[in-house]
Amino acid sequence: ISSLAARARAADPLPSWNDTAAKQSVIAFVEKVTAKDSPDYVAPVDRIATFDNDGTLWAEQPVYVQLLFTLDRLREIAPQHPEWPNQEPFASVLKGDLKAAAAGGEKAIAELVMATHAGMTTAAFEKIVVDWIATARHPQTDKLYTEMVYQPMLELIDYLKAKEFKVFIVSGGGIEFMRPWTQRVYGIPPEQVIGSSIKTKYELRDGKPYLVRLPALNFFDDKEGKPVAINHHIGRRPIAAFGNSDGDYQMLEWTTSGEGLRLGLVVHHTDADREYAYDRTSKIGQLSKGLDDAKSKGWIVADMKKDWNRVWIGKALDTNTSDK
Amino acid sequence: ISSLAARARAADPLPSWNDTAAKQSVIAFVEKVTAKDSPDYVAPVDRIATFDNDGTLWAEQPVYVQLLFTLDRLREIAPQHPEWPNQEPFASVLKGDLKAAAAGGEKAIAELVMATHAGMTTAAFEKIVVDWIATARHPQTDKLYTEMVYQPMLELIDYLKAKEFKVFIVSGGGIEFMRPWTQRVYGIPPEQVIGSSIKTKYELRDGKPYLVRLPALNFFDDKEGKPVAINHHIGRRPIAAFGNSDGDYQMLEWTTSGEGLRLGLVVHHTDADREYAYDRTSKIGQLSKGLDDAKSKGWIVADMKKDWNRVWIGKALDTNTSDK
Ligand SMILES: [Ca+2]
Ligand SMILES: [Ca+2]
Repeated sequence: ISSLAARARAADPLPSWNDTAAKQSVIAFVEKVTAKDSPDYVAPVDRIATFDNDGTLWAEQPVYVQLLFTLDRLREIAPQHPEWPNQEPFASVLKGDLKAAAAGGEKAIAELVMATHAGMTTAAFEKIVVDWIATARHPQTDKLYTEMVYQPMLELIDYLKAKEFKVFIVSGGGIEFMRPWTQRVYGIPPEQVIGSSIKTKYELRDGKPYLVRLPALNFFDDKEGKPVAINHHIGRRPIAAFGNSDGDYQMLEWTTSGEGLRLGLVVHHTDADREYAYDRTSKIGQLSKGLDDAKSKGWIVADMKKDWNRVWIGKALDTNTSDK
Repeated sequence: ISSLAARARAADPLPSWNDTAAKQSVIAFVEKVTAKDSPDYVAPVDRIATFDNDGTLWAEQPVYVQLLFTLDRLREIAPQHPEWPNQEPFASVLKGDLKAAAAGGEKAIAELVMATHAGMTTAAFEKIVVDWIATARHPQTDKLYTEMVYQPMLELIDYLKAKEFKVFIVSGGGIEFMRPWTQRVYGIPPEQVIGSSIKTKYELRDGKPYLVRLPALNFFDDKEGKPVAINHHIGRRPIAAFGNSDGDYQMLEWTTSGEGLRLGLVVHHTDADREYAYDRTSKIGQLSKGLDDAKSKGWIVADMKKDWNRVWIGKALDTNTSDK
């Protein structure tokens, strides 16, 4: 009997998911679209799945990881900017008064982002991200950010890949902030990462070409932007989409309103003990309209507390980028 | 002996290429980067190859296929535009006077493109392209455009794919003009097609979501734009790039200036009998700086007349999109 139980566990593609309706619905969907004799069969080439990142694949509380990166970078490069102590929003950030800095609204945030994300080559920025993500730690858990990744979602990615899905990230976060580590952490290569971006410029320096990051927004990949970016990068509609906030509403709507069987899943943060509990009133990762409409839209709401028997990543990560 | 010859042919991944330096250099490169014990070995995940489309994978003379599509569409939808006979550049196009239409320069061409490429949903545009490409014929050869594809380049794509390369198209042509047929014709799926694009907008109509094509340029994927788009879509530098004009110069420069072994190849149109002969002074597909610098840059110049024993595609195409 214990051997049978072990075999059952080994055959279970989603061991960190409890055997509840959420897991059963996901597995039923995947089996229906991959069984050759199924009326819902989808050819491998059309098996596109998209995942939001912040709050869907890794934690986003108390604030987005990329904002913490931005603040760390501001402090790091402040010595090169003697004007900042007399210039908002930089002065407030350097004094540690984030509320005062945020009072400048979107314009202030854009200034902080451009000061830290633009002006260097793409190669230099990649190195900055790689170095930071290897050592920076979460202010509350003291874990590496790449340890604050959800094991159940990694199992979902691996399960879909094993079933010949092509898996993409579609995030409001910066495309070049994610690409340096998504292969290592999620097994998703850079060309399958979609995100917000700033403009770049091709430039020769001493006859050698570089791409230089410019302080100008190229694309904001959130809300209505997600289907636009999916169409631009992928060129076809996903058959499955996974998100956690109202920023993913249109991605799920676009995905699940296509013809044939579709899957939409919303991760609901309900577990204050193991992770965080937030939804309708949260400033980060607000989920309200998505909760209201999930039932009528046929989207699965995965309740972190009830549906996951484990939250955090359980496998050891290599320090180097590994092959697919 | 005939059996040996047959086996040799079967083992040759590039049978439409003569056994000249161009073919030998391509095969030597692929063998060096794929042999596990080679000092130039590249892991499969980093084997990215990019191909220009017009003049590299299919013919571009006497004018770009997409321009012929644009003119066909203008005539098709002219009845819905009673104002056009009194409005340039439309009036000249409808009278068949392309020179007068072109006198309006880039602005006139943009107007013609937007009038035919924008204003409809992405799904509607896809259907327009699919229908047109299935029946429209080349003005000089009377072939379908998908029959004016170069067999040697198809063999190159298949060879690279067999060696675990991920192959992308990077074209100045419209991304949504190519995607409906690249899987069927080249075996390249839509998510591996990069091109010029117009903006799109997510829109609900009677509660159903659509992406609507707007009359505004999003990105022009030519010259310096090619490395920018490669970085945006792929997120890493190719190790091999294939083009035919000075519009590909920066893509080849970006690709071959990376570290490690790299391959750059320029298709030189030298065969007026089987295809066309043009280079330095051609308005379409001008190749001048690329010819000047190929040697110092280490790029292979493939001479269509000398290096190819066959020009046009030789396999029958399915009418439906096939799997990878
Ligand atoms: Ca999110
Ligand atoms: Ca070309």
